Amino acid sequence: MARYDFASDNTAPATPEALQALISANEGFASGYGTDHVSRQAADLVRATLDADAEVRFVASGTAANAVSLAALCRPFEAVLAHEHAHICTDETGAPGFFGHGLGLIGLAGASGRIDGPALAAALDQPDMSYRQSPAALSLTNSTEYGTLYAPEALGDLIQPVKAKGYGVHLDGARLANAAAAGFDLKRIKDLGVDILVFGGTKAGMPPTEAVVIFERALARRFDARLKQAGQLPSKGRYYAAPFIGMLQDGAIFRHAAHANAMAKRLAGLMPFKVRHPVDANGVFVEMDDATLKRLHKSGWFAYRFLDGSVRFMCSWATTAETVDALGEALKSLA
Amino acid sequence: MARYDFASDNTAPATPEALQALISANEGFASGYGTDHVSRQAADLVRATLDADAEVRFVASGTAANAVSLAALCRPFEAVLAHEHAHICTDETGAPGFFGHGLGLIGLAGASGRIDGPALAAALDQPDMSYRQSPAALSLTNSTEYGTLYAPEALGDLIQPVKAKGYGVHLDGARLANAAAAGFDLKRIKDLGVDILVFGGTKAGMPPTEAVVIFERALARRFDARLKQAGQLPSKGRYYAAPFIGMLQDGAIFRHAAHANAMAKRLAGLMPFKVRHPVDANGVFVEMDDATLKRLHKSGWFAYRFLDGSVRFMCSWATTAETVDALGEALKSLA
Amino acid sequence: MARYDFASDNTAPATPEALQALISANEGFASGYGTDHVSRQAADLVRATLDADAEVRFVASGTAANAVSLAALCRPFEAVLAHEHAHICTDETGAPGFFGHGLGLIGLAGASGRIDGPALAAALDQPDMSYRQSPAALSLTNSTEYGTLYAPEALGDLIQPVKAKGYGVHLDGARLANAAAAGFDLKRIKDLGVDILVFGGTKAGMPPTEAVVIFERALARRFDARLKQAGQLPSKGRYYAAPFIGMLQDGAIFRHAAHANAMAKRLAGLMPFKVRHPVDANGVFVEMDDATLKRLHKSGWFAYRFLDGSVRFMCSWATTAETVDALGEALKSLA
Amino acid sequence: MARYDFASDNTAPATPEALQALISANEGFASGYGTDHVSRQAADLVRATLDADAEVRFVASGTAANAVSLAALCRPFEAVLAHEHAHICTDETGAPGFFGHGLGLIGLAGASGRIDGPALAAALDQPDMSYRQSPAALSLTNSTEYGTLYAPEALGDLIQPVKAKGYGVHLDGARLANAAAAGFDLKRIKDLGVDILVFGGTKAGMPPTEAVVIFERALARRFDARLKQAGQLPSKGRYYAAPFIGMLQDGAIFRHAAHANAMAKRLAGLMPFKVRHPVDANGVFVEMDDATLKRLHKSGWFAYRFLDGSVRFMCSWATTAETVDALGEALKSLA
Repeated sequence: MARYDFASDNTAPATPEALQALISANEGFASGYGTDHVSRQAADLVRATLDADAEVRFVASGTAANAVSLAALCRPFEAVLAHEHAHICTDETGAPGFFGHGLGLIGLAGASGRIDGPALAAALDQPDMSYRQSPAALSLTNSTEYGTLYAPEALGDLIQPVKAKGYGVHLDGARLANAAAAGFDLKRIKDLGVDILVFGGTKAGMPPTEAVVIFERALARRFDARLKQAGQLPSKGRYYAAPFIGMLQDGAIFRHAAHANAMAKRLAGLMPFKVRHPVDANGVFVEMDDATLKRLHKSGWFAYRFLDGSVRFMCSWATTAETVDALGEALKSLA
Repeated sequence: MARYDFASDNTAPATPEALQALISANEGFASGYGTDHVSRQAADLVRATLDADAEVRFVASGTAANAVSLAALCRPFEAVLAHEHAHICTDETGAPGFFGHGLGLIGLAGASGRIDGPALAAALDQPDMSYRQSPAALSLTNSTEYGTLYAPEALGDLIQPVKAKGYGVHLDGARLANAAAAGFDLKRIKDLGVDILVFGGTKAGMPPTEAVVIFERALARRFDARLKQAGQLPSKGRYYAAPFIGMLQDGAIFRHAAHANAMAKRLAGLMPFKVRHPVDANGVFVEMDDATLKRLHKSGWFAYRFLDGSVRFMCSWATTAETVDALGEALKSLA
Repeated sequence: MARYDFASDNTAPATPEALQALISANEGFASGYGTDHVSRQAADLVRATLDADAEVRFVASGTAANAVSLAALCRPFEAVLAHEHAHICTDETGAPGFFGHGLGLIGLAGASGRIDGPALAAALDQPDMSYRQSPAALSLTNSTEYGTLYAPEALGDLIQPVKAKGYGVHLDGARLANAAAAGFDLKRIKDLGVDILVFGGTKAGMPPTEAVVIFERALARRFDARLKQAGQLPSKGRYYAAPFIGMLQDGAIFRHAAHANAMAKRLAGLMPFKVRHPVDANGVFVEMDDATLKRLHKSGWFAYRFLDGSVRFMCSWATTAETVDALGEALKSLA
Repeated sequence: MARYDFASDNTAPATPEALQALISANEGFASGYGTDHVSRQAADLVRATLDADAEVRFVASGTAANAVSLAALCRPFEAVLAHEHAHICTDETGAPGFFGHGLGLIGLAGASGRIDGPALAAALDQPDMSYRQSPAALSLTNSTEYGTLYAPEALGDLIQPVKAKGYGVHLDGARLANAAAAGFDLKRIKDLGVDILVFGGTKAGMPPTEAVVIFERALARRFDARLKQAGQLPSKGRYYAAPFIGMLQDGAIFRHAAHANAMAKRLAGLMPFKVRHPVDANGVFVEMDDATLKRLHKSGWFAYRFLDGSVRFMCSWATTAETVDALGEALKSLA
């Protein structure tokens, strides 16, 4: 049987803290559609974590959370600027175009998943033409698809010219916990010009849940109707909110993310193949030919070939040092 | 503090069986996007429950499940026939039009939430005209929004002329468990001509989850891509599948639904106000003026005024006889 | 062969003035996508006619012009308030929902096609709820679908509470020329709070063309991209602009509309059936049973049964007094 | 004043034959929405020209015609395969995604605007994955965006593996007349597996009009409602149909296209810059640096830099040999 330990960070179970909070929330009757006390408490914790007076909603799907956010920032005849390998560009089956009614995506180059500043500047310099979709928002991802980190300053440098144009900014934080554990100060997001953040719960070790954090209050108007129409306003909101309580109230989310990051570093240290990208967070990307990958799969370890041709190994809160070492041994025997 | 016991059947917590199954599923690594063993086991149980060789997917949202299903049955310049007070018409913020790209809804009359046969026939008799959205599907709900039941024969009578036209059929089973507990034989659905069923978990006492059951196999092609784009293909599918295992494997879902139905009957028996609709399932609808409703709210019990002007009281698996009796007392004092 | 003289005001040919202007514009090379000198000249004439400093675009379709305008005023989880028999509600195959991505329509009652003030007020008073599409715009039609007129004051009374809510206003002017000929002062539109006007060319006697007039300049940003994506930015814009030049430059549009209105009055005077609505503009609506209508059709005259059950006779610039009298005779023989 | 003679083939006026037919059609009353005798006659002529028993509709916009066709062939979670520089990919502001509700586009490489067979094969070989939009149709353009021609055999070779997959085929014939004049046999289209053809009128020298030709009859069901909802079912259909009568009834369309093609050949012969693509039809693409292009613009001649970096000169029915020679002189002085 294949082992999915390193296939993704969504193959792990939920953390004890997240699950326990969900169990604790399963008590008594509660009002619906996110108006319950659990959702309120979780939203307060998210705000405290970000040190920000923002609107917070808890939804089921990261794909939908991203797509709904982008639809809130752009009109159908406009486009989102994003790294060409961003999740929204390559892994969401065109969800931004579906939720955004034909919304375009403009893929930008950049090493190791970080958008190249000049590439962004060039895209912003393009004149508006009626025959193409001009940008109206920038989407950033931290930590990135290639397991690298943006420092707040680096994000600020990308965001500044975008805001100068009057465009919106979305931050895909599916792995924001890993970024935080790697040193990214979450309390600085509020001052960077981010309009909407998707603060990921799922990949951080929760049952499926994501927090949509709306910094730009004007966007919050009728947001519940927007979510409801999009199938993302849960009637039983407490089940999406509770895991955030369990994970945020004493910082478990960051301890778990730090562990995942450390496991990635450990794996990188054992790796007999060339590591292609800096290992800032919880992913290790290596150069491996097809024959070797096939043998790896045969030996029972599952890993994906990624968009840049490297093979990706993801660590999670549940990855153990023993498993990392076992994988290291297996890889050594293939190299 | 307001008591939400009777405000809806989604104010209750999850049943012990559903929650325990979720906890049990939270073990080890699992492959993503519904390919895991928990999802497979749950799908098998759904198929066994329905005695049908159907495709089964587990999703987060009933609104989305309905809307995605209708989008699969109709094109944007077509319409869905439904009871004018069906959930898709009145409570989903236009989700069918959003997921269906402008898809129309044609509301049909009918007493106590059941579509009137002649009204349906008249709608089907309308000639196709280019300036309006002609029907391509019928959406049914069982048990209905007014707590009444369709017998299989009654559903068959509505479905037959629709299938004769070559149109599709969707069954909103948000309260299918209550229908089953009231005598509706789930194994007969497969022979009625239903193309897609949404088998509700949430209102039946699970954490948020719904099973999409595709009887018409041609509709299943690329359905995962359809769900993914719509933000309804969970990366961690086991958390949506597991509660169905807990509730289906030994019939807990039906015992709980039977209890909810019985509580509704008990409440109806105590009711000092005129009960407007037959109490087949878990809802009681009564005639109550605004002043009385306001006093009820003040006394701490929350209930909604519904679309037909009556006031709705919903019972759930978690409703106790004591609470019913306490509400009965409170109502008596207002009458 | 059936005579379509009275079936609609779009069955008539184009006026000599409109056609001649189109022929005159067919000279030499011209830049594309509405940047040509013909489009500029026509836009100037529209602005002069309305005494307004507005953005003007010429498009092919009234249905699309309305739908694109409504999409500019509302988001998908919002709705448009309109008369329940407005063209956008009943005759455009759900185009507002298609162009507006699921945008809702809220139909309002009102005698003879004019929205009832209290009905509008009641709709505006509804609290925002996440489960339904709350209004974000009002759509008005002048002259109305039933051939009646709003005075500027009447429009203002409807618009005022809508603007007070911060909502947008769209004016469907498919028959604006008929309204003007009936005394409606076009120069007052700019002060009424209308954000977007569709000034109809087609029914006024032009080859297919409509002017989209954007009073609220903020809506004009990237409007050409909006039109292009919607298939409504003509590469050869002069063919849509020129007819407006021919019809506006010396007021031909109003002379022709006055004639159409006069023909309707003449027909009403000859009518042996009960006329149901005031004949302010170019339509006559009468009470006629099915058998009589069938005999009318058999006698060669085509007319439609309309939404309120009456039978509609439309006059146009091309309707002659002789034809009106001939129809009058035919009707007399059936009465 | 800038001269737009070579900027595009949509800067020319309409041909005498097209305009005369429009004038002739402007006679008497006609039924609406494409049911008139002019539309019928024009549809018959299109069918005769293609020797095909197909459904034919006349619409205003090529962008919309393409987008509506693609929406008929694909679902939102699917994609269209097309040349990466096809008009639908680069010049229509994302209209396919707008009309197709998020429909994806997969750009394929290929020299001089013709899709590379192996690139297509590779795209067809990609396994269906739920996280991306898999292809459901191929869009071809003839003559291509780079003024080159596909022979029927070449189209057949591209289409065959697509049909083998059960996917649809769309042919963008904005310049089909130029292809025909260059030797492409229009009567062979019907046997190639094309499901929908957009037969261009606008660039062929008509006032704005395009014929949508539906070879696959199953797609024609409710197509008028599809067009109406998309703002492409003209109430006064005769004005879109008539130009086709004038141009097709005695082959004027092909004489004019042959002239345009000949003018392009003449220009290519005079060209002092390197011609980058074969001059099969009516466009000439040359290598020219920015400084030179700027001087060309200053000298009064307008031409665009195109997607591959070359500068495009388009000829039309209205291009005269004298103008070509004058442009040739002007270019010589810049070289």
